[in-house]
Amino acid sequence: YSGFTRIDGKKEAKSIRDEIKIEVSRMNASKNVVPGLAVILVGERKDSASYVRSKKKACESVGIKSVDVCLPEDSSEEDVLKYILSFNEDPSIHGILVQLPLPSHLNEHNIVNAICKEKDVDGFHPFNIGLLAKRGSEPDFVPCTPKGCIELLHRYNVEIEGKRAVVIGRSNIVGMPVAHLLQNEDATVTTIHSKTRNPEEITREADILIAAAGQPNMVRGSWIKPGAVVIDVGINHVQDLNVPSGSRLVGDVCYEEARKVASAVTPVPGGVGPMTIAMLLSNTLTSAKSIHKFQ
Amino acid sequence: YSGFTRIDGKKEAKSIRDEIKIEVSRMNASKNVVPGLAVILVGERKDSASYVRSKKKACESVGIKSVDVCLPEDSSEEDVLKYILSFNEDPSIHGILVQLPLPSHLNEHNIVNAICKEKDVDGFHPFNIGLLAKRGSEPDFVPCTPKGCIELLHRYNVEIEGKRAVVIGRSNIVGMPVAHLLQNEDATVTTIHSKTRNPEEITREADILIAAAGQPNMVRGSWIKPGAVVIDVGINHVQDLNVPSGSRLVGDVCYEEARKVASAVTPVPGGVGPMTIAMLLSNTLTSAKSIHKFQ
Ligand SMILES: NC(=O)C1=CN([C@@H]2O[C@H](COP(=O)(O)OP(=O)(O)OC[C@H]3O[C@@H](n4cnc5c(N)ncnc54)[C@H](OP(=O)(O)O)[C@@H]3O)[C@@H](O)[C@H]2O)C=CC1
Ligand SMILES: NC(=O)C1=CN([C@@H]2O[C@H](COP(=O)(O)OP(=O)(O)OC[C@H]3O[C@@H](n4cnc5c(N)ncnc54)[C@H](OP(=O)(O)O)[C@@H]3O)[C@@H](O)[C@H]2O)C=CC1
Repeated sequence: YSGFTRIDGKKEAKSIRDEIKIEVSRMNASKNVVPGLAVILVGERKDSASYVRSKKKACESVGIKSVDVCLPEDSSEEDVLKYILSFNEDPSIHGILVQLPLPSHLNEHNIVNAICKEKDVDGFHPFNIGLLAKRGSEPDFVPCTPKGCIELLHRYNVEIEGKRAVVIGRSNIVGMPVAHLLQNEDATVTTIHSKTRNPEEITREADILIAAAGQPNMVRGSWIKPGAVVIDVGINHVQDLNVPSGSRLVGDVCYEEARKVASAVTPVPGGVGPMTIAMLLSNTLTSAKSIHKFQ
Repeated sequence: YSGFTRIDGKKEAKSIRDEIKIEVSRMNASKNVVPGLAVILVGERKDSASYVRSKKKACESVGIKSVDVCLPEDSSEEDVLKYILSFNEDPSIHGILVQLPLPSHLNEHNIVNAICKEKDVDGFHPFNIGLLAKRGSEPDFVPCTPKGCIELLHRYNVEIEGKRAVVIGRSNIVGMPVAHLLQNEDATVTTIHSKTRNPEEITREADILIAAAGQPNMVRGSWIKPGAVVIDVGINHVQDLNVPSGSRLVGDVCYEEARKVASAVTPVPGGVGPMTIAMLLSNTLTSAKSIHKFQ
């Protein structure tokens, strides 16, 4: 055992944002174009509203134009589609995202599939997911959180090829695409979900463990192979009467236990969260560059 | 250890074909429509030509109309696309497939993606693969070999939920889609490929083992967990000077060793192969029913 690394997503995200800022100015100077991101929020979920605010702020910090549309909880599918179709046509918009989850009366698939794939900066369109899953093809955009996880592994020089990787969670947003990204880099991947028996026996085989179950502190020290690299995607609010707000953010990994076993762990907050937003900015920039043929 | 089952794909495929034949007649009687399958073969590969012949014969046996187009090895992408686009428009054609692999000068993705997704009976279009990979959505068509594997598990009452499944191979045609199908039925899935270290340690954990590597007899008895169910997708021609043709078909699994350890194994030939073709007929019938709104 040769030391422990706290993977600093906040720092890496900052340096990615700095690079994006330079590219945004360069593009503006040369093409007179500012990348534009449209964010659609339906309803009043506090966490969603706060994610949308963070995305807006991050756009501002790098010079990307952001437009957000906040629609009432009881909006119809047609209301939402109307905005998507108009952003699809709008030449000042290069990326479109719909903040998930949507109110339950709306059909997420119909809405996500309406975003034209060239502006699908969240990478959730089935066509882009299909290109991610298929060997020998590349999607226009890779979903932001999974891309952020892999980017952290790259930036910390974690070898992926030939390693055992275990992903806890199989959602469309995190688990499933991160498993494909790891497999595309030649890891041997196992995906765990709520129907998996004895998950800790499987996680203990992982050289790289990605936790994205949304279960506070689920991954204990005993679940981790000594020396493994652990990426904690979970964002969970748990009650804590010792802090003024009465609640505290924790990940899916019990950090204090994990740091004694793993070689590297991402903290929550300050790990995957900031990387997700940096990847969104990066996808938006890539889209604008590609639409305007700017290298 | 309570007995061994040879999974009889030939018999199951026959009974599926019998059901399809009845449905084809019923549809013809009621709608005056015969399902039509177009098969495009480019080049002279002997194995491909033989697969195309089997598909044609199978269509005839159930009353599906088959049209095959055989194009020379040096055909251009445009030559192939011309046929696809015309079949896309042709109301007598309900399924279109391009026999893979294509000659190396042709771009497989451009060609497969040109098939309209409503007639993509091979299920290889990225949009259909994306819908297969995403939770909460269903593709129009599931690829035939993976669907045949799962159908065998169902017909032999093999429990999938909560079981460990290991898939050897991650190709677009077999490994990747079969892994998604198993995961969609709540197995805990690990995918092995050529960069996996110590594959036999992983396969020994599998309650359900799918071998699709194209490596003759790779899976030995010692690779198999006692009582596991083993589906052998491999079709490999190996030299055998004791038979008149000088070569013999073997799977990826060493059947004689496997039958002593596993609870059930598919033979090669007579296992997955006939199921693949039955699933193609089934997808073509489904497509015709859906296009003509016939239940
Ligand atoms: N850092 C960031 O930027 C982001 C963080 N997140 C956070 O990541 C976490 C996961 O998000 P998301 O994928 O959207 O969540 P979902 O609820 O959509 O998916 C959770 C997945 O975890 C599985 N799961 C749930 N409980 C268990 C369990 N006890 N054991 C094994 N597997 C389990 C579920 O299995 P099943 O499929 O069987 O139900 C499901 O596949 C959340 O905490 C979320 O807040 C999400 C997005 C971005
Ligand atoms: N029964 C039927 O109807 C059908 C049978 N088949 C047969 O199934 C087999 C697989 O076909 P297909 O998927 O098209 O083949 P591919 O060659 O496209 O893919 C083979 C996969 O197996 C992996 N692999 C190869 N060697 C090893 C090894 N030694 N250890 C672990 N993994 C390995 C490869 O890994 P990597 O990705 O790293 O290269 C690859 O993912 C073939 O024998 C084929 O003839 C195919 C289709 C239909």
